[in-house]
Amino acid sequence: MTRSLTILGATGSIGRSTADVVLAHRDEFRVEAVVGGRDAAALAEVARRLGARFAALSDERGGETLKEALSGTGIASGAGQSAILEAVARETDVVLAAISGTAGLAPTHAALKAGRRIALANKESLVCAGEAFMADARRLGVEIMPVDSEHNALDHALAAGLNRDVEKAVITASGGPFRTWSKERIAQADADVASAHPVWSMGSKINIDSATLMNKGLELIEAHHLFGLEAERLDVLVHPEAIVHGLVQWRDGAVTAGLALPDMKVPIANALRHRERLQMDLPRLDLAAIGRLSFDRPDEERFPCLSLAKAALKAGGAMPTVLNAANEIAVEAYRAGRIRFYDISEMVESVCSTFSGRRLSAPAIVADALEIDREAREAAMGLMPAHA
Amino acid sequence: MTRSLTILGATGSIGRSTADVVLAHRDEFRVEAVVGGRDAAALAEVARRLGARFAALSDERGGETLKEALSGTGIASGAGQSAILEAVARETDVVLAAISGTAGLAPTHAALKAGRRIALANKESLVCAGEAFMADARRLGVEIMPVDSEHNALDHALAAGLNRDVEKAVITASGGPFRTWSKERIAQADADVASAHPVWSMGSKINIDSATLMNKGLELIEAHHLFGLEAERLDVLVHPEAIVHGLVQWRDGAVTAGLALPDMKVPIANALRHRERLQMDLPRLDLAAIGRLSFDRPDEERFPCLSLAKAALKAGGAMPTVLNAANEIAVEAYRAGRIRFYDISEMVESVCSTFSGRRLSAPAIVADALEIDREAREAAMGLMPAHA
Repeated sequence: MTRSLTILGATGSIGRSTADVVLAHRDEFRVEAVVGGRDAAALAEVARRLGARFAALSDERGGETLKEALSGTGIASGAGQSAILEAVARETDVVLAAISGTAGLAPTHAALKAGRRIALANKESLVCAGEAFMADARRLGVEIMPVDSEHNALDHALAAGLNRDVEKAVITASGGPFRTWSKERIAQADADVASAHPVWSMGSKINIDSATLMNKGLELIEAHHLFGLEAERLDVLVHPEAIVHGLVQWRDGAVTAGLALPDMKVPIANALRHRERLQMDLPRLDLAAIGRLSFDRPDEERFPCLSLAKAALKAGGAMPTVLNAANEIAVEAYRAGRIRFYDISEMVESVCSTFSGRRLSAPAIVADALEIDREAREAAMGLMPAHA
Repeated sequence: MTRSLTILGATGSIGRSTADVVLAHRDEFRVEAVVGGRDAAALAEVARRLGARFAALSDERGGETLKEALSGTGIASGAGQSAILEAVARETDVVLAAISGTAGLAPTHAALKAGRRIALANKESLVCAGEAFMADARRLGVEIMPVDSEHNALDHALAAGLNRDVEKAVITASGGPFRTWSKERIAQADADVASAHPVWSMGSKINIDSATLMNKGLELIEAHHLFGLEAERLDVLVHPEAIVHGLVQWRDGAVTAGLALPDMKVPIANALRHRERLQMDLPRLDLAAIGRLSFDRPDEERFPCLSLAKAALKAGGAMPTVLNAANEIAVEAYRAGRIRFYDISEMVESVCSTFSGRRLSAPAIVADALEIDREAREAAMGLMPAHA
């Protein structure tokens, strides 16, 4: 059966992998719309390759370029906020939501409100506005399928039992480039070194989050919302080979785990079809050839961002929104060479403690989340060293 | 909700572990009947501990001893074949079938025919008469839950998808005591050395089967019947730590795995309740503390019994029944010091090739399986060295 699909963030890394999956299964998918950010040429290219019916560019200035690039193809196009909303409003079975950052919140939420099944790759939707998203998903009966390899693995593992029998759901961390480094050495490392992720090739911001382990902290917050598990039932395990992505420990002592070679096409394919799996022409996991898998506890002393994220998850309310916003600003400053590695966690901690007195409740609508996000970014900016 | 339970093989290793599970969950289980082999005192003891209503001893000669040992307890008892059938006929939710060897076939099948849910620990039921068992289970709508840690792990992993999307189901082998030995050294090892299993403490026959890897071959045959997977979709992986017990590779490249510390109480608890898991007061798997898991391909050159079992599974018909019978005789002879290690596989191969010409179809009823079993044992006995 052919499923129709709209891709938000079609020109990014996840969007391109999704295009590969779709092109390998032309009979199974029909692409309704593709949405991109600023690169009109790249968006036109992916729209043509996928035979999409509609292409929407976020940046209004690229609208003409996009239109020209698609002339004669029969693919309709538009630019700006209204075009994105038009793309999302088009009837489709699944929306793959892969616009990165807080920019992804509004379009993803619009797709959810339209009742579309969501294959979710945008972390911020759940980190910043998890309560709002999940409440709407429950109310509308919309299924949210995680595209992250960790959450996708947990989703598989959770099929082996009931939520109430879960003692612990564990996501793994490759450990990033600083896994074996001393704290003193990490403190001196600049953003270029921190960006060199040992396993995944991702965007640079997300690579820094992997180096600080904030990435795993944010994933714990996502897991909390996706699977309805409290902070006490969530944990992180360091696993450099990045083969085991998630594990569920049951109350009878058994453990169910999700594994795969680190290739985003695996969780993407799964999120698009869920329990009915696609035939994927990819190398298979060969544990005998790999030989060994290793595991370690994360060191929250060297990677304090993980502690901060755990604390924000435990604190609840708007704290995860604040944490995420402060982290974005801090990572940006680190990448620009304005602050050092451990300034990231100090800045995040400082912003979180500023907000903790206000005891803000969890944003009930996306607009509230975006407002708290804005405030927290401002607070983080205020902490930036004057000399930089 | 309290479930009633009958335990076949209550005085054996699995039976005793089952008693531990039941005693730790007095509110959840009521024991209807316990069945033992020859040890009347041990059976009376377990019947009393569990507060069973009925105890049946296979060996008729122990009937009086059992009766005396239970006098005043209100626990009824009996001995011999009829008593076992009486035990099986008693109304109960689950029958844990853990009588070992072909002796377990008839009582297990009687429980199945009575429509009881089966928690199956008796390998031979499926190895010798898999078609008969599964056909009756399907016809009567009876659920068969595997107690083996490998099959229990596969059962969990298979929950993450559809059977038709399974590319491969893999069970792991610790590798036995000869995992790292040369063929020459293995050839000289006697049964005492072969019985020293590195992970599991089991009966001696099953320990020899672990040393030859025949155990894994028989488990492949079981998996074939339990999960409806052909020989081509089943495989074995060596994993000395015995933490990962089974893995399912899906056609999208993802893998779902079942893990647990090697303790039979985990799969027993799961088989008794299935998806609703019991709270078990056991040590939890701590991968960070374990540090590493290792994997290797099984060496069918050093462990030819695995090849023989795979060939028997592929050949189908009565060949698995023949293989199992020949192996039992050969292992007995090896344990008695009458033959050497590699005589086991040679004897099994020889008996299998004798029968292969007859192209016997798979036994459709248990009596046929037992008849083929008897013939194959005779053929194996005929191959025994005269000097021994």
